[in-house]
Amino acid sequence: MGMGDVSINSERLWRRLMAMAEIGATPGGGSHRLTLTDEDEAGRQLFLGWCAERGYDVQYDQVGNIFVRRAGGNNNTQPLAIGSHLDTQPRGGRFDGILGVLAALEVLETLDDNEIETDMPVDIVVWTNEEGSRFQPAMMGSGVHCGVHSLEMVRSTLDDKGLSVGAELDRFGYSQGLVPGARAIGQYLELHIEQGPVLEDSGTVIGAVKGGQAIRWYELSLQGQETHAGPVPMAQRRDPMPALARVIDLVYQVGLQDEAARSTIGVLTARPGSINVMPGRIDLTVDLRHPLETRLKEMDAAFQAGLDDLQAAERKIAISLEEIWHSPVVLFDHALTEAVRQSATGRGLPVQDVISGAGHDAFHMARAVPSALVFVPCRDGLSHNEAEYTSPEHAAAGANVLLDVALRVACAR
Amino acid sequence: MGMGDVSINSERLWRRLMAMAEIGATPGGGSHRLTLTDEDEAGRQLFLGWCAERGYDVQYDQVGNIFVRRAGGNNNTQPLAIGSHLDTQPRGGRFDGILGVLAALEVLETLDDNEIETDMPVDIVVWTNEEGSRFQPAMMGSGVHCGVHSLEMVRSTLDDKGLSVGAELDRFGYSQGLVPGARAIGQYLELHIEQGPVLEDSGTVIGAVKGGQAIRWYELSLQGQETHAGPVPMAQRRDPMPALARVIDLVYQVGLQDEAARSTIGVLTARPGSINVMPGRIDLTVDLRHPLETRLKEMDAAFQAGLDDLQAAERKIAISLEEIWHSPVVLFDHALTEAVRQSATGRGLPVQDVISGAGHDAFHMARAVPSALVFVPCRDGLSHNEAEYTSPEHAAAGANVLLDVALRVACAR
Repeated sequence: MGMGDVSINSERLWRRLMAMAEIGATPGGGSHRLTLTDEDEAGRQLFLGWCAERGYDVQYDQVGNIFVRRAGGNNNTQPLAIGSHLDTQPRGGRFDGILGVLAALEVLETLDDNEIETDMPVDIVVWTNEEGSRFQPAMMGSGVHCGVHSLEMVRSTLDDKGLSVGAELDRFGYSQGLVPGARAIGQYLELHIEQGPVLEDSGTVIGAVKGGQAIRWYELSLQGQETHAGPVPMAQRRDPMPALARVIDLVYQVGLQDEAARSTIGVLTARPGSINVMPGRIDLTVDLRHPLETRLKEMDAAFQAGLDDLQAAERKIAISLEEIWHSPVVLFDHALTEAVRQSATGRGLPVQDVISGAGHDAFHMARAVPSALVFVPCRDGLSHNEAEYTSPEHAAAGANVLLDVALRVACAR
Repeated sequence: MGMGDVSINSERLWRRLMAMAEIGATPGGGSHRLTLTDEDEAGRQLFLGWCAERGYDVQYDQVGNIFVRRAGGNNNTQPLAIGSHLDTQPRGGRFDGILGVLAALEVLETLDDNEIETDMPVDIVVWTNEEGSRFQPAMMGSGVHCGVHSLEMVRSTLDDKGLSVGAELDRFGYSQGLVPGARAIGQYLELHIEQGPVLEDSGTVIGAVKGGQAIRWYELSLQGQETHAGPVPMAQRRDPMPALARVIDLVYQVGLQDEAARSTIGVLTARPGSINVMPGRIDLTVDLRHPLETRLKEMDAAFQAGLDDLQAAERKIAISLEEIWHSPVVLFDHALTEAVRQSATGRGLPVQDVISGAGHDAFHMARAVPSALVFVPCRDGLSHNEAEYTSPEHAAAGANVLLDVALRVACAR
């Protein structure tokens, strides 16, 4: 059985994508299933219902990662795992993560439909909290699986209502699961929408991801003294707002140093937030990225130096900065990525090498075992957005590449 | 009976200020009683309990304004009303508004304690929603009383949870009250903390307020297109954040045109507000003030022209501006304000003329009937802040000035 001899059921894949999107559906056409909420759990149960129809074995671990197994001929070998996530951003899209999970299910069912026995088992993995919008850090489940974060640390993480990851894991029963990391994975594949415009702009269908950007996340606060908007003369205020303008300029100056750099202020909050009160405190987050680790280090240095200069100039307010996450550059497995290119070429799908601008669970996996990441285009490069869209043809193309690579890897003896 | 012959009970005034502050008390030493919440209603009931001990007649109107009457010898004349508000800012102070209401109660009780019969009735008025932080516009109750806003309009106003003023008025039974404006007022007095540093800086105890700043409020939005923080090249983003820096600079440039001008960005929200999502939309409010109407008009023109220039330069985002409120310059009654100066001088209290930087219910009243506004200092000029403080001596001094002016006005035949 070689690449391109069998294909996934594209109609079934699309139907399931649309069914999943109904859970937490938003008026703007997206989905809202924040991790470890009732909506997220409902999405997982829908997925597990489909798995149950095939009789696949299901296990989960104590951080809520789900492992679905299609047994192979030799189940003493470590499995090929294909995975992604089912949680979404707030008012997020229908494809980010979900496509990767449902395409993995397509791979297993297509093997069934064609009565193909693989040598090694083939697993689907659903990682907990890839998005990181309700609980930080992002890619939490894969990070705990790989030993990057401790279970204790992530269990104590709180959302903005004060609810902990641990309490939510207990509520859904995941705390009864396997010790994280106990479930071995031999090789790892992930399909994801690109979340950027590069493939669409070049008319390419398959992105063979060579590596991922290095990322640093920061929390920054500007502390002044809140007061009424009218009485206090402007010169006597301890007002953090003018400094915010300087911080924005600095962050974007850092992000514009070369074309591969990115800088983003994602969260921005002024307290107390009343129309006739000068805010006493402004909190923001900064996300800096670059595909070269050395360049990201330079961006970090320029950012911190700029803030030091700003603090020296703005004596009436206190500027504080904390780096809360650093994801180093990641490189994917050459052989698996070459198999991705060969599958695309064999199927007549335009393919190109790309760098991932977003973080993915595959980043953690790539540091542990041979891994590959496959991209398909999304319309206008939009993601983390209700309008996020990838066509049925592109979704199927990505799933077929997963199938081809799985056949090559899992059938080799 | 002349000015200075009797004085209020300063110990009782302070005790009641501290008792009121316990309702909605915050860990930082302030109070949190947003208008028409359970906490606001509890504060009103505490106040009405004190009024009931004296047997004063109490009425309320359909927007929740409360009228407490100490009868005079000639109850066919229109009353002298002394008032302010009991609602607070989010995590606000213990004195803003509350001092004016409790000082008014002191005036009535001191008249009782000294068995003084006035000619005209003397009323206390508690105005609904002076703060404007939960429901806009601010000074809502006095505005409806004076016919500036319709009851229907304010009833349909929603808070950020979608609850309406009307539903809250119904819940507390105020909708059964008098038609707003039916309760006539002949003259109006209000005591308030200054909410700025001018009196403290000059060692003055009493501010005789000549007039109030003109105020304009705006809602401004910067609309781009949200997207993931990593994949999309910076040049291809439709990112409103850099334009925010230009808006901040513009707003502060407008507010720094002369020493009497003020400009404030109070509410600032970036959506969706996730660390790895470039916000697609930023909403903010702008508050511009000046004691001269013509200068405020120039500030408005400079602000709007600056935004037009910015829109011309930033083609990838849409900038929209709406003026949501305009409070013209107000001037207080010469005779009543002169009575304030004479009272202070008679009691040996340092007095100076000031301009009010904040809006007050007295602004609406001053356009309808002869009115005066009296300020006492607050520490460091802080207000709309948990650390807001005025000393027992200054609180009492302000209440005694109210008493003196009330005696002069209400006893004159």
